[in-house]
Amino acid sequence: MRITVTGHHDEITRRRIRRAAGDAHVAFASDPAEGIEHADAVVGNVPDPLLARASRLRWVHSPSAGVDAVLSEKLLASEVILTSSTGNGAIPLAEHAMMLMLMLNRDAPRWLRAQSERRWDRYVHGELAGRTVGLYGLGNAGLDLAAKAKAFRMRVLGMRRLPGATAPGVDELLGQDDFPRLLAESDFVVVTAPLTAATAGRFGRKAFAAMRPTAFFVCVSRGGIADDAALFDAVREGEIAGAGLDAHAVEPLPRESPFWRLPNVIVTPHNGATTEETARRGFDIMLDNVGRFARGEPLRNIVDKAAGY
Amino acid sequence: MRITVTGHHDEITRRRIRRAAGDAHVAFASDPAEGIEHADAVVGNVPDPLLARASRLRWVHSPSAGVDAVLSEKLLASEVILTSSTGNGAIPLAEHAMMLMLMLNRDAPRWLRAQSERRWDRYVHGELAGRTVGLYGLGNAGLDLAAKAKAFRMRVLGMRRLPGATAPGVDELLGQDDFPRLLAESDFVVVTAPLTAATAGRFGRKAFAAMRPTAFFVCVSRGGIADDAALFDAVREGEIAGAGLDAHAVEPLPRESPFWRLPNVIVTPHNGATTEETARRGFDIMLDNVGRFARGEPLRNIVDKAAGY
Repeated sequence: MRITVTGHHDEITRRRIRRAAGDAHVAFASDPAEGIEHADAVVGNVPDPLLARASRLRWVHSPSAGVDAVLSEKLLASEVILTSSTGNGAIPLAEHAMMLMLMLNRDAPRWLRAQSERRWDRYVHGELAGRTVGLYGLGNAGLDLAAKAKAFRMRVLGMRRLPGATAPGVDELLGQDDFPRLLAESDFVVVTAPLTAATAGRFGRKAFAAMRPTAFFVCVSRGGIADDAALFDAVREGEIAGAGLDAHAVEPLPRESPFWRLPNVIVTPHNGATTEETARRGFDIMLDNVGRFARGEPLRNIVDKAAGY
Repeated sequence: MRITVTGHHDEITRRRIRRAAGDAHVAFASDPAEGIEHADAVVGNVPDPLLARASRLRWVHSPSAGVDAVLSEKLLASEVILTSSTGNGAIPLAEHAMMLMLMLNRDAPRWLRAQSERRWDRYVHGELAGRTVGLYGLGNAGLDLAAKAKAFRMRVLGMRRLPGATAPGVDELLGQDDFPRLLAESDFVVVTAPLTAATAGRFGRKAFAAMRPTAFFVCVSRGGIADDAALFDAVREGEIAGAGLDAHAVEPLPRESPFWRLPNVIVTPHNGATTEETARRGFDIMLDNVGRFARGEPLRNIVDKAAGY
């Protein structure tokens, strides 16, 4: 049994992976093409052209949490099992979303501008306490954010694809049909959902028009869930109060993007979860799955390829 | 019985105060000197020279939460009861402290600088999860911040003047003698304590030297608890990682203050609790106390004048 591990790993890391793999052979490769014909599993992304040559391939592990960029039609149609690192960045993403909400609610950029000009610029701002946050997506990041928002004395609405399960920290669980309520009742709409066929473009002109003019739109998961042109117009026309955007439809966000200079918008460079701990948690998930695969045990973080996450 | 209420109040507000006062006479005055000889109580600050003339005065209510600026030696020596608005701004102060911690930990000013230059500046930053926050002061703001920090999966140390009472959200309650531990173990030291004889200058050169070089100092209550020269040197020399300062020894912070331009320092203009809700909660405390005074009932938020808060 052969497991190809792509990416750069130092010798100690390689030893840990080999030890986890037990009797299975681990091949470290900078390019997944190396020996793809013999690989039973690949840790890393497998481009479509390689997939046709990978006759033995049964498992692909994605080093990122979202698999939208990996999940090609060929992979979807194949029998290959796809697992992801989902959960590795949930905590820092929730921290980032909370920071963006606080900064938007208090207009923190105004304080930093005043500081750079040595101006004492004191003004009345809002509190998060008592406000409603609507979470679009209740995966690991959404649930962690719900707990944080409760500690901030917020009302928490949470929308998820599959109804039924309980969600600690969420005051009211909404289903797909309640999307208009999520928009109408939230002071902050926070997108933590993956980019899938069902979520792509979900926030278009009608959605932003249905939001409160005092409400903020925050996205920390994936660009493309919001229609950027509609979002830009909604902020510029004052249809919503502003936005905090860590994920963007095109990344890096091009220099000519109008979002950089739009007032009431905070742009961060898809950087919310970029911590050493995220890397470590991702590595631990991979290591665990390498061991499971080698031992023939069920893998964790298996992607529902039809659902897209 | 005569209660003098200073400050500007519209007619509806005046009616609410009069109604709360019942049979007591309410005199609205722009200057507390007006009729001070006849006042049994004053809502507002009573300067020392007036105190000598206020022979009937039994109660002064401070419209602010901290009474350091009000509590003169004459007032301290007198029999006059002093009450404060303490608690009115606890929630937004805790929100502000949390925002400063997040912004410092992630170096949010770097993102805003990059945004203003339309630069995609992606870098590795930290998480609050797993870090230790040391709260210097466990009043209303400190306790609210403790609950928030727990939701952020932080370890919470809390130091208070009086030992004994439990403090929800605090993992370890420290007494006065544990000050060195607070300094040595905290990744974030957050000052929420009032300015009193006991706290003034408590954070001097020795204190900052005892902090971790990776730790941040945050102050949201009152300036003067830190020795500004020592704090400035500690940040400039890299003895600590940075600071988030909403309260300053001299306010407004003078244009020539070196803190405005010190890297790794976020300066806000004593603005953390400036919300409409803070004003409303402060008004409600005052209204409640006016009623209690008129009815001869025990007042709330009585200041321990010897302790200074």
